[in-house]
Amino acid sequence: MSQNLLPPSGTRDFLPDEASYRARIFDIIKKCFERHGFSPFDTPSFERIETLQGKYGEEGEKLIFKILKRGEKAQSGEADYALRYDLTVPTMRAYAANRHKLPGIFKRYQMAPVWRADRPGKGRFREFYQCDVDVFGSNSLLADFEVITTLSAALNDLGLVDFCIKLNSRKLLKGMMEAYNIDKAQEKQILIIIDKMDKIGIEGVQKELEIISSAQDLLKDLTSGDFANRLKTHVQSSIIGVEGVKEIEEMLQNLTQILAPDQFVFDPLMVRGLDYYTGIIFEINSTRFSGSIAAGGRYDALSETLANIKVPVCGGSLGLERILLLLEDQRAQYNAGPEVYITLWDNNFKSDILALVKKLREADIRAEIDLTGDKLGQQLKMADKRGAKIALIMGPDEKNAQTIAIKDLQKMDQIICPTQELISILKEKLGH
Amino acid sequence: MSQNLLPPSGTRDFLPDEASYRARIFDIIKKCFERHGFSPFDTPSFERIETLQGKYGEEGEKLIFKILKRGEKAQSGEADYALRYDLTVPTMRAYAANRHKLPGIFKRYQMAPVWRADRPGKGRFREFYQCDVDVFGSNSLLADFEVITTLSAALNDLGLVDFCIKLNSRKLLKGMMEAYNIDKAQEKQILIIIDKMDKIGIEGVQKELEIISSAQDLLKDLTSGDFANRLKTHVQSSIIGVEGVKEIEEMLQNLTQILAPDQFVFDPLMVRGLDYYTGIIFEINSTRFSGSIAAGGRYDALSETLANIKVPVCGGSLGLERILLLLEDQRAQYNAGPEVYITLWDNNFKSDILALVKKLREADIRAEIDLTGDKLGQQLKMADKRGAKIALIMGPDEKNAQTIAIKDLQKMDQIICPTQELISILKEKLGH
Repeated sequence: MSQNLLPPSGTRDFLPDEASYRARIFDIIKKCFERHGFSPFDTPSFERIETLQGKYGEEGEKLIFKILKRGEKAQSGEADYALRYDLTVPTMRAYAANRHKLPGIFKRYQMAPVWRADRPGKGRFREFYQCDVDVFGSNSLLADFEVITTLSAALNDLGLVDFCIKLNSRKLLKGMMEAYNIDKAQEKQILIIIDKMDKIGIEGVQKELEIISSAQDLLKDLTSGDFANRLKTHVQSSIIGVEGVKEIEEMLQNLTQILAPDQFVFDPLMVRGLDYYTGIIFEINSTRFSGSIAAGGRYDALSETLANIKVPVCGGSLGLERILLLLEDQRAQYNAGPEVYITLWDNNFKSDILALVKKLREADIRAEIDLTGDKLGQQLKMADKRGAKIALIMGPDEKNAQTIAIKDLQKMDQIICPTQELISILKEKLGH
Repeated sequence: MSQNLLPPSGTRDFLPDEASYRARIFDIIKKCFERHGFSPFDTPSFERIETLQGKYGEEGEKLIFKILKRGEKAQSGEADYALRYDLTVPTMRAYAANRHKLPGIFKRYQMAPVWRADRPGKGRFREFYQCDVDVFGSNSLLADFEVITTLSAALNDLGLVDFCIKLNSRKLLKGMMEAYNIDKAQEKQILIIIDKMDKIGIEGVQKELEIISSAQDLLKDLTSGDFANRLKTHVQSSIIGVEGVKEIEEMLQNLTQILAPDQFVFDPLMVRGLDYYTGIIFEINSTRFSGSIAAGGRYDALSETLANIKVPVCGGSLGLERILLLLEDQRAQYNAGPEVYITLWDNNFKSDILALVKKLREADIRAEIDLTGDKLGQQLKMADKRGAKIALIMGPDEKNAQTIAIKDLQKMDQIICPTQELISILKEKLGH
């Protein structure tokens, strides 16, 4: 294929089967979010460059797609706009601009593409969808609970029931640092090591912590078994640590109302990469996929950094592209083509056929008429290529007898049915 | 409001009411297109700049948003990608790249944003949605019929029933030029004048045609009344003109099967701006809005210009942003917020409330729990702000009696109901 017909590197064309499969998945998720009281809230695809700059760290900044100024200013080679890099920063901008029109507690969702000039690879794209829910304006732990249970309900609705939610609290991690007398200067380094537990195991963590001077008390408890309970006891000396334990315990208690006992667990070593979390953090893993399929937490200070307003927020995201990969085996079920293909015997039958297709569509049957103008055999081949389950044939005999032939393209059998009964027979055959 | 909180000029933030109203309109249209056998087919938001350049004329070209090269190449100030300017050109690229995977006759739709660096104004945006249907690979006039009737069915589904479809044929226009002996060099100029009939009336057209030497025979017939029939007779001397008349008459005949007589009309003076049409052309107007709300036609030669392949195509677009404006009075009906707001008496009631919200959501009721942690009066105010129709209250009395109070926030009345009957009473009150 000529190179210039391919989409740009890291982007995709979606053919009908995949496009309708994706639309169906998106639709299930949207319905779930709305049932949980979240409302859509959308922002433009690009922002002023200042809105995005300085928000994603040095590495992230390099991945922003910038838009050239236009007209005479294009000559300068300067950019003034940039494509959305994530949904969080633009939403915070739009929330700040509109908050006087929004209720004091505002639950929003957004499912939209973002763009990153990353090196493309398997499952890594330059245009991909993100899917966020956030609660603005509530300090209540029930807001965190709503975020977590809404995301897990969406996974459930998608048929991804074998998940486990890992819970921790940034307050508890802070308390842990205080209680084990960690050097302030070594905190970040230690958190990074602990966060690698999944990948390098306890031996790997031990090896890396052994060479950090202030980490030795922590390391001792870490390797003595049942760390979760040891930690809970040990952090009683830290005010913020006690707060952290309390919020974890309350969240676990709340979750028992909604989820099975094996669907959630307290994981004192789960850190989550982003610096900006301030309270409960969580990660949802599937047993069918390594790596998380959803994650989030409370970030009460971010609004001040991003939009110079003070509002508590907690939120989370579904790893939409990962989930789409995970569910790919279900994709074949979605047929984007017509259900019923109406053949055209010859032009004398056209007005009957046109009236018929109208009738079928009004009965909510995905129907289409032959557009090849070929002979019947070719028309039936096209019916099959278009994915139709049934072809209808009306020839002179059928027309005279006020009947129509229904050809099942999968079973390859054919029945003759009276025209008046057509809709009900088709609906039964199609499982409507 | 601080300037830097606004979205970039010509783009929009969509608050929940508007976002869900738009989503609902989009959904109605998609369902209609799919019922008519069209499948989704999506392309990326940006293309390689070569794919778009040279396709939109000089004026269009200036309006393309270009994306700066990245990394070290960013220094050059050069662009390599560009945001999609319309859906037609990218679709043609993607169709050419994938046509061996697609059926010989392929019906696709797409509803997606495009970007133009136009001067923003009322109803004119820099990011806006286009909505196209196209049939690839069919020479049959039934393909044109499918495009026209699918778009008119979508208008119908949206409640826009007062429309009229104007029909013409590029072949007939060509035949008209031949039959009236128009100078080749004056053809374009004359078509531009005729196309202004709606705006400047017959007097205006007359005035402008009078000074064009080869237009005098045409002008005479134009001003003699019943031009449609005069033209049909006159073009009998032109082979392509005769073809044009034949396809118009066949289309009118076909449309009588589906539409009311006042919903379509032959308009020999309708030209449509774009040069690339080759056959039937159409425009749909609403009596409630000046300017067209849908348009399209057959463009059998465009695939060769754009993608170096030969495939007949006919298609059309809904003027989505116009239609959204037109339907705006229906918008208030769409409430994006929760239906039921569950108040929290105090923390002792929490586990009951959490079990309750789960139950409601499983019954497909958009429910949410109080996240303010405030007193009951404040909670009820928030329920109202969030747009809920009903608030539920469970205090000690209700809990002991296994009942719950249902407060209708619109009528401001309150009933006590047994817990077991809650779902059915709510469904009735909410009209589920």
